[in-house]
Formats: sequence, structure tokens, C-alpha cells
Amino acid sequence: MVSMDKLVSLAKRRGFIFPSSEIYGGLNGCWDYGPLGVELKRNVKDAWWEDMVSRHDNTMPADGAPAAFDMVGLDCSILMNPRVWEASGHVGGFTDPMVDCRETKNRFRADQLGVFGVVGDGDDDSSVMDAGPLFAVPGESGAATGAELAAAHGKRFRRVVRNRRGYRVAAVPGALDDVDLRGRTYAPGASEPGTLTPPRTFNLMFETHVGAMRDASSVAYLRPETAQGIFVNFKAVCDTSRVRVPFGIGQIGKAFRNEINPRNFTFRSREFEQMEIEFFCAAEQAGDWYRYWRDRRFQWYVDLGLDRAKLTLREHETDELAHYAASCADVEYGFPFGTSELEGIANRTDFDLGRHTDASGKDLRYFDVQQADPEKRRFLPHVIEPSAGADRATLAFLCDAYHEDQVSGETRTVLKLHPRLAPVKAAVFPLIRKAGMPERALALFRALRSRLNAVYDEKGAIGRRYRRQDEAGTPFCVTVDGATLDDDTVTVRERDSCEQVRIPGPEVVSYIVERIEA
Amino acid sequence: MVSMDKLVSLAKRRGFIFPSSEIYGGLNGCWDYGPLGVELKRNVKDAWWEDMVSRHDNTMPADGAPAAFDMVGLDCSILMNPRVWEASGHVGGFTDPMVDCRETKNRFRADQLGVFGVVGDGDDDSSVMDAGPLFAVPGESGAATGAELAAAHGKRFRRVVRNRRGYRVAAVPGALDDVDLRGRTYAPGASEPGTLTPPRTFNLMFETHVGAMRDASSVAYLRPETAQGIFVNFKAVCDTSRVRVPFGIGQIGKAFRNEINPRNFTFRSREFEQMEIEFFCAAEQAGDWYRYWRDRRFQWYVDLGLDRAKLTLREHETDELAHYAASCADVEYGFPFGTSELEGIANRTDFDLGRHTDASGKDLRYFDVQQADPEKRRFLPHVIEPSAGADRATLAFLCDAYHEDQVSGETRTVLKLHPRLAPVKAAVFPLIRKAGMPERALALFRALRSRLNAVYDEKGAIGRRYRRQDEAGTPFCVTVDGATLDDDTVTVRERDSCEQVRIPGPEVVSYIVERIEA
Repeated sequence: MVSMDKLVSLAKRRGFIFPSSEIYGGLNGCWDYGPLGVELKRNVKDAWWEDMVSRHDNTMPADGAPAAFDMVGLDCSILMNPRVWEASGHVGGFTDPMVDCRETKNRFRADQLGVFGVVGDGDDDSSVMDAGPLFAVPGESGAATGAELAAAHGKRFRRVVRNRRGYRVAAVPGALDDVDLRGRTYAPGASEPGTLTPPRTFNLMFETHVGAMRDASSVAYLRPETAQGIFVNFKAVCDTSRVRVPFGIGQIGKAFRNEINPRNFTFRSREFEQMEIEFFCAAEQAGDWYRYWRDRRFQWYVDLGLDRAKLTLREHETDELAHYAASCADVEYGFPFGTSELEGIANRTDFDLGRHTDASGKDLRYFDVQQADPEKRRFLPHVIEPSAGADRATLAFLCDAYHEDQVSGETRTVLKLHPRLAPVKAAVFPLIRKAGMPERALALFRALRSRLNAVYDEKGAIGRRYRRQDEAGTPFCVTVDGATLDDDTVTVRERDSCEQVRIPGPEVVSYIVERIEA
Repeated sequence: MVSMDKLVSLAKRRGFIFPSSEIYGGLNGCWDYGPLGVELKRNVKDAWWEDMVSRHDNTMPADGAPAAFDMVGLDCSILMNPRVWEASGHVGGFTDPMVDCRETKNRFRADQLGVFGVVGDGDDDSSVMDAGPLFAVPGESGAATGAELAAAHGKRFRRVVRNRRGYRVAAVPGALDDVDLRGRTYAPGASEPGTLTPPRTFNLMFETHVGAMRDASSVAYLRPETAQGIFVNFKAVCDTSRVRVPFGIGQIGKAFRNEINPRNFTFRSREFEQMEIEFFCAAEQAGDWYRYWRDRRFQWYVDLGLDRAKLTLREHETDELAHYAASCADVEYGFPFGTSELEGIANRTDFDLGRHTDASGKDLRYFDVQQADPEKRRFLPHVIEPSAGADRATLAFLCDAYHEDQVSGETRTVLKLHPRLAPVKAAVFPLIRKAGMPERALALFRALRSRLNAVYDEKGAIGRRYRRQDEAGTPFCVTVDGATLDDDTVTVRERDSCEQVRIPGPEVVSYIVERIEA
């Protein structure tokens, strides 16, 4: 597997990903996509949009789906009425536990230190961090796990719970105010224990002010997720789009979280892009739809080429779930820095629509005209949410595609990207810059370019030109050589196998288009 | 021409555009794109990206271009190092003049009241509003124009200048501190003159704080334009992408401006999306490239179907230009609320790269390996900037497409959108829901859907189904009827003419694909 150093280096050298505003020293947790990166990420997002929304067939059940269903798209604003975030619980509870080291002056997210917050009852995810967490490095307190930590203090371990953001926090029942292990905790880089401050809750939403006043009445937030935009538009979409439950709304867009410690390249950044579906269905069918979406979303990454062996579908255990979630699973990928979440699929029940009904005073119930029983005609649908990160998916595709192999006795770097994702689909070369080869190659290039993203390159030895395209992940290289002038055939070289086939020039476009779209 | 009321009503009724977070009363200046709207706007952005970036042919001069050139893409973060905005001048000067009415308590942007700011010398756009502007309603002071206003006070009128944001402000030379017309100004809705406060400058950038501290050191801004992200990445792109001057970098992305008075639907909003090119060239060729881009960008709107008679290419007069701009032109469209800017094309000289060179201390000069004269090898390119608004373009396409005409004695509403822009490309109907027609229609629908965004509809009278698609702008409706079962032909109805042709069923896909892609 590629090291992160190598990957970051390639990403920068070839113009996939740069640090944001780097000439000014950058901005921690923000990244820019360069000329190759912007095409790669566009292809990831377009593949998602086509597969989930715009090419979805609503007239027959998809593989494994309980029934045929509608999918429509949406694109909401990043700034929204702040009451959205009060109703969703983000204003009150979208927090991380932040601790400072008095010795090194470094700041940490408590759970990233490997310390456990041991709290009251752990039933309410939004109160996990407000209930007076207690911190201890497992090794220090003699406990290797939350269970041992709890046992060491004579408490029953309630297993791991997740706070709103999905971070695992060990929880035991009953108040632990009488116990204090903080004095025995080592901070990274500290020379003695006990230098960490008590954790303070820190809201992860970026705040700003809308309008000319800067007071409480003008506060607005950069959305920390795209999902809420879908919930608050649920009724508008129902009223205008002839959709019928079960149906889904898909959205791609930026979201922002003021991470205490952004890290792992683009994996945990402060500005990122989500690809989210909220799928609305009857309560009785929610279990079936949950399994359908969990499996379909897992398969999507496999179909786009991610190594099946590096992918995990991790079903959460009951005690891990947020209190509103009936089930949840993570699609995880084995990144160079560890196995981490690409996407979460959750059965959120009717929690969100219920919260927005209460907070807005609007009746968000769905009206089912086909329901014979008048009692059952109006209901609040349950929601299955497949929530993916476009930057995380892009990073996983990059990591997975990176290979070094031996070709003609030399080591080459090659990005074995799925043809749908490759930034450039084909390169066209004249073998040499004379004898009419450039003219023939240019004609071929233009024919290809009218159908897909192709490049023309006539500079340098042919082997070097191949390597350059290998590093960019270009699936096909077409070379015009001496034989072309005689019999109008060209060679097409396939990126992964390096195998060349000779085919008639007039067939090149259809040959490549077929293989890209397959 | 369609009235804004009708357009806003259609946009809401058919799911093109909704007010943001409407169940909570909305957020002024923010809009959500519904199921049809998101597809329309995606098509506008994709058309721009394909035409300007990904399908650009860098091997031969485009029509009217002085030479062949490269185009590459970029996607920068919205949050950037704040020094970017200090260097660009936005922290100091990206301001609007804000006035309050003491009587009605309303707040206005001074220039939107139709009042003139008459300032010192008008040479420095960023200081226009800081130089002690003087306000008067033209009618009140007896002056209908800036020239008359100036003349009335014995001053020479220096014509209209534009501040950084492109708003026109009348300017006369010499200090006017001794003149005060404010007492004679009526505010809208006020019962007597003199209720307006003196104008205060108001910075339009949204501020937030990055990291856990909320102090001056952690301030960051939501970018008010995408352009600066391109400038600060200029060197990174040069170093990694084998581009050679002249070349362009294109970017599509959100930008934010804390408008005092958002208005005219999505035209002037607080959150919007830009489609910007920064084109880098030698100083000597900047004039030629400016004219090339000005004309090409104008033609782009014509090619995508905007009524040529409603489009204006307005070249700015010398006195209107920002101090760093050598030339500037606006592509304007005759909206229902007045003729307004869709896009600006400016020759920004080497102003931006020069500012970032000075502020960052990095050498941003381009190195021309092909230049024989060593003295001329390193230089700061000049920049031509075609800057378009994706929401404005989408709104113009919607307004322009809206028609009401008579079909079979009934009034129909039809969106005559260019086929590339239409959210749905084709609809397939069985004439009736029996006799095997639905099965045949579904097979056709699926064949189409694998190539483009198609819908299937079997509900209601055929005339109503046509109207529904007309309102959505769907270019083609395919109907399976009794004859289909006999001879495998179907009717294809064209949206604008309502003409129907009967063609063999197996030819439907290619018939429609050809006309969509043409």
C-alpha cells in the first residue's frame, strides 16, 4: 500500500491536490484541487449523481430493492435560517471535547488522544459531553479498554456509545463525580502527567453574521452537513415533484466543520463536500430499505474499482447507535493511516422530520392518496440516510489506484483508476514529430476530444510520454507511427497491462468510448 | 416578456427554485434549487465547463483567437488564508455605502436609492466611498444626472466611475465638503426629507473564526469571489501542469457577499455561484485576448439560446473603469426587472499577480523557456477575466425560455430551453394504459434513460402530459400508440413547434440523442 507521503507528493507534483492559499502559508484543514484533481473529483461526484439520481430508473425495482422508487435531486444553500440548526440539535449538541496541555500549549480533541470520556448514562448522544466526562489514558489507569476502566472503578460498562459525530466514547452508568483520573493522564509530548485541562465542549459549527448587525439576532452558521437542507425541503419537494413515498432526495454540496485537529490530508478537513441521500419510506419498510441502501452503497465503491479486500461494511452494535437511530453501518476503507469511514448509512427513523415539525409548526406529514384506510393516509415517513464524503471517496480512489510496478526493467508509478473516474480518458501521440505523424495524430485527437477528455502530446521519448499518462491515470494511449501512414492502423496501449493492440484508425473513437462507458 | 411574479410562481410550483429554509421563514438572499432547478443549473455549469475547459482544443486557435492555448480547471476552498483578502484589497475596500432612514427604520444601499455619491477625485475605486460622499435624490436637488448635480454645485462632472463592485457612482473632482444636500433627500416611504443617515461603509465579506479561538488572529472570510483562488494557485498550476502562457484557468464555485439589500429573486443573492476564467497572457497581447474573450463569452449565451435582441455587450468608458483595469465590458441581459449584468470581462493587467507577489514575497513571475532574450524570460503575465454568475445565467435562461402561446385553442406555458440545458431531455408516454402500450413505452424509456435524463408518464390525458413537459422545458415527447403495436413506429413531438413526426421505434434513441447533442 502507498504511504501517505508518496501519495501527497504525487498529488502535489501532478496537480491533483494543493494546500489552500499555500503562498500565504495555507489554512489548516483546507485544500484546493488542481487541474487533474478537479476532473477526478468531478468524475466521482458525477458518477454518484448519475448512479443515484439522474439515471435512476423509477419504473422497476433496482437489484435488491423492495420496490420501484423515485429519486430526485436538490441543491440547497450553505447559509440557512439558524432555526434549522436549533431544531436539528446542532446548536446545542454538535460539539467535540477539547483539552489543552498546560505544558506544551497544544490543543487536542480528547477522544483523539485515546482517552475515554466516562459519563452518566450515555443515552442521549447530545449530552454525552455535557455530563461531566472523566478522562484517563487507558494504560495509565491500568485499563486497556472502556470496560476495564469502568471495572477498575466498580462501575458497569455500557459498551461504546457514539456521540452525534460518530466518535466513540466509553460510557458507564451512574455518576462518577467522585472519581478523578485526570491527574494520571499523560499528554503527547508532555514530560509529566496531569497537564491536560478538563475538557470543554466546543461547537464545531462555523458562525457568521448575516446583514449589517453583528448581534445574536443575526447569527448564521455554515452548514455542518447537507442533510438538514433536504429535511426542511421535504414538503416542498413532495408538493411540486409528483414523487411518492418511498422516494429519495440526493444532494451534493459543501459542508464545514471547525475541526480542532484537521488531519490525514483531505480525510478530515474543515471544508469538505458531501454526497447525501435522504430516503423517505413507511416505518414498516424502514428495515428493508436500510439493508438495501447499505448494501447498494457498499457495492458502489466496489463497482468503481476499490479493492474489495480493503473495504469493510461495519454494522454498529446497538449500544453504539445515536439514540434516534434504529440501525447504522459504516463503509470503511483501509487507508494508509488506518481503516476509516467513507460513508455512513443510518436508519434515522422519523427523528428529523419530527424535530422540524415541532420546531417549525408546519405539518410535514406525507399524504398517501393511495392508502384506503383514512387513519393511515397521513404519516411522517422514516428516513434512511446514506451519507458519503466526496473528498474521502476521492482520496480512497487515489490511494487504491496508486501502484508501482516494473515495466521494461524500470519502476513506473501508475494510477489504476476506473475509466469513469480517470481525469483524462485518452492521450494521442505521434511517434515522432515528422513524416506527417503529428497531422494524423491531431486529427485523431480532435475526434476523441469531441467525445471525451483527451490530450495530445508530441514531446519527449514515447516511453516517457506513456509514464506521464500512467501517473495521471489515463486509461488509453493511442500512438500514430510509421505503419499508420501505410495502412491507417494505430496502436492503443492499455494503462494497467501495458498491452498494445493495433486497430484501424477509424475505429479508435468507438473502441475507447465503449471501454470508458462500460 | 414574462413578469417576475409569473416566473417566481412557476419556479416554485414546478420545483425549480425555492426560498432557502422556507418552513422557518427563509433566509433573505439565499435560495434552494429543487428537483428541476438543480438539473437546469447543473446543465448550465456543465455546458460552461465543457465549452471553456474540458473540451477545449489546445492544439489549434479557436475562432477569433490570436493563437492556440491551454485551458485547465481548478477547485479552490471557500475558506482561505485571510492574507489573500488583505492583498487583494477586499479587507480594506470591498464595501458598500449603507444608509438608514431614521423615520422608517429601513436600511438601504445608497446607490440603490438612486442617489448619487459625489466624491473627491474618483480615481481610486476603493476610496470612492471613503472620501466623504454626498447624497441627493436627483429630482430633489433639481439634477437628473450626475452631470447636472455636479453642475448645480459649480463642479466639473468627471462622468460615472465604478467602485470595486461595479456600481456606478457619479464623481466630480475637488472636495465638496462645503456642500450638503442630505437634508433635501427623501427616503422611500418617508414622510419628509432629511431622514437618511450619512452613509457608512460596510464590508461585504462574511466573517468567521477558524480554530477554537475567537479573536483577530483567527478571523477568516467566506470568499467573495472565486478569482483570488486562481491567482494564488497560479504558480502551482504552472509548475505542475505543463501549461504555457497564454493559458487560462477555469473555476466554478460558491461565493458569498453580505448584500445590504438582496433582491430580484436569485439575481442579487448573498450566496451565489461563479464561473470564472483567469486568462494569463503577455502584456503586449492583452488587448487582443481581451477582445477575443469578450466576444466569445457574449457568443456563448447566444449559442445557448438567449434572445440576441435582449443581450447587450456594453463596453465601459475609460472613466468607468476600476483603476487597475485597462478595459472592461459587461454582457447584459434584459431581465423583467431591467437590463442587468450577466458577466463581466475585464483586462485586469498584472494588478492581481503583482499584489500577491508583493504580499506573499513569492516570485510569481512566469518563466518562458522559449524566449530567446534572457531579459524577457521572466515576466508577470497580464490577466483577462471573464467572470460569469451561474445563478444569473440560470435565471436569464429561465426568463428567456418562458413563453405562453396558444395550442389547440388553449394557452400553454412552455419553457423553450436549449436542449443542452433542459433538465429532462425526453418523456415517454403510452397513449393509454392497456393493450401492451405501457410495456412498449417502458422499453423505450429505459433505452433513452441509459443515454440521457428521461421520464416515463402514463397518468392523465395525453394533452395534459404534453403540457406538464412543456412547462418543464422537455424538448421531446415520445408517444406509443395503437400504430406502434402494428408497425413499431412512434410519434415524437417537438416542444416548441408542437409538431409530431412518426419514426420507427428503434430509431428513437439516436433521433433524440442527435438533436440533444447538436
